[in-house]
Amino acid sequence: MAAGEFELIGRCFTGRGAGRADVRLGVGDDAAIVAPPAGSELVLALDTIVSGTHFPAETAPRFVGHRALAVNLSDLAAMGAEPAWALLGVTLPSGDEAWAAEFARGLDELARRHAVALVGGDTTRGPLAASVMLAGTVPTGGALLRSGARAGEDVWISGTPGDAAAGLAILQGRLAAGGAARDDLLRRFLLPEPRVALGIALRGLATACIDVSDGLAGDLEKLCAASGTGAECDAALLPLSPALLDTAGTELATRLALTGGDDYELLFTAPPAAREAIGALAAGAACRRIGAVTSGGGVRVSGAALPRDAGHGFDHFGK
Amino acid sequence: MAAGEFELIGRCFTGRGAGRADVRLGVGDDAAIVAPPAGSELVLALDTIVSGTHFPAETAPRFVGHRALAVNLSDLAAMGAEPAWALLGVTLPSGDEAWAAEFARGLDELARRHAVALVGGDTTRGPLAASVMLAGTVPTGGALLRSGARAGEDVWISGTPGDAAAGLAILQGRLAAGGAARDDLLRRFLLPEPRVALGIALRGLATACIDVSDGLAGDLEKLCAASGTGAECDAALLPLSPALLDTAGTELATRLALTGGDDYELLFTAPPAAREAIGALAAGAACRRIGAVTSGGGVRVSGAALPRDAGHGFDHFGK
Repeated sequence: MAAGEFELIGRCFTGRGAGRADVRLGVGDDAAIVAPPAGSELVLALDTIVSGTHFPAETAPRFVGHRALAVNLSDLAAMGAEPAWALLGVTLPSGDEAWAAEFARGLDELARRHAVALVGGDTTRGPLAASVMLAGTVPTGGALLRSGARAGEDVWISGTPGDAAAGLAILQGRLAAGGAARDDLLRRFLLPEPRVALGIALRGLATACIDVSDGLAGDLEKLCAASGTGAECDAALLPLSPALLDTAGTELATRLALTGGDDYELLFTAPPAAREAIGALAAGAACRRIGAVTSGGGVRVSGAALPRDAGHGFDHFGK
Repeated sequence: MAAGEFELIGRCFTGRGAGRADVRLGVGDDAAIVAPPAGSELVLALDTIVSGTHFPAETAPRFVGHRALAVNLSDLAAMGAEPAWALLGVTLPSGDEAWAAEFARGLDELARRHAVALVGGDTTRGPLAASVMLAGTVPTGGALLRSGARAGEDVWISGTPGDAAAGLAILQGRLAAGGAARDDLLRRFLLPEPRVALGIALRGLATACIDVSDGLAGDLEKLCAASGTGAECDAALLPLSPALLDTAGTELATRLALTGGDDYELLFTAPPAAREAIGALAAGAACRRIGAVTSGGGVRVSGAALPRDAGHGFDHFGK
């Protein structure tokens, strides 16, 4: 049988990602076979990104490939899991091998940095979209859940939220920026760095954790709802990047930090007794305390002139 | 935060599929947590089905939901794996809750019959498509691969290939049929029954196995390529259903059986010494010997007036 474009495209994904001794069978059979370590539980996430919904249609394929894996790495980071094996379903409008090769390169680079093997998947024809399933492991009982927050604990955020939303706004011509700030913010949207090492380091320290994909305020509401708590945050404590402040000013920067999507930072809670240990983590330097868990009353953010809809995250269908 | 349509749709999928004691955390956190049994390897498959490519755009949502899982169950069946946990990424053009509920029902019914829990996933806006990742288990070293066939062994097929391709042709108005034959063939396309029990039963009996999704002849070529063998089959031995023969006649029925897609039957090889054991399987009644593995020379099918392109399977991009 002559190789069709379909098969040529599929070959772009063969052998991608890291090599792993626990992969018994990778791409090329009906399914992949892997061997999870004894004493571990399996953590599974699947996310789909669609052109025009999750990234602008004209986004370079390398960035799309990076994003397709990054969103799942971020989910596993939020569980404190160690990522291991990915499967990719990519849908392309035509058999564009150059596009597929660049997409594969973006995914491959990120996968190798996190020791993730691409063990299988599927290439199909249709409107541009990519689904990645990522499997990883945690020691049995060791995962970070959304539901463990308790009143009196601290609320923490990693990194500098809002940057990615500003980067998207720049891409779409809704926000003007120049020089290094522009580059920084664009990179934060196009090449998000999921906090995998931080998530693993937070096992046993954080009591609840979620990744910020839909906006800090909305994702904090989800964490609190799962924990049966509320939270109070001080907007003045939000770690806003110089690039974001220079570009957007304090009020818009605060709004983007609270409601912008695509940060892929970790939002977590921990008892005050854990402050020193968190500060001492190699990955902990990026973390800032922004508030406290309360016994109820929803999520309240004080300390700044907040826009009316600051409590709302990003909803694909709702906006 | 008010629930958007996105969340309403997502709720259609909560609690779907079978309950399983090994699910530590299902839908609702950043990822799912499951506990694979000791002594097992993990088998992972991901398939995407796209409207207009893998099913007609007007297909009822219940059938789309069934198909989204069935294609993955068939992949795991071909490995001899026991399916366990699924994640779903569904992309919908609008927040059509009724459509999503019917889709979920179709997936749920099939999942329950195979003890598969739906543990997570993602609902996004975009052109209609669904990706399912299915994870299952095999005893360590016990999986059926494509690569184990050896010259002198038998080639077997389960069920009655070609029916699903005839069903699709009827749906698309390319083939006329009436009465019970029409219903049978449509059902074979719309509600394929993956051979999960047969796959498990074939552990230790079959030497190589593949599921027939792209056409028997093309998939046999893939199995032989992976095994470094050839095969000779007799078209007169193909198990053609009465419905297919009545509707299409012998020549077209043979063509559909060899080159039609979407059968989701198992094509496997086994030594002659295994004939009695295979025949004695509860699931083995559906199996028929159609040829023999050869030491080389590609796949040859004799015994009928075969169309020129009978050696070609279905290639999404290639046709």
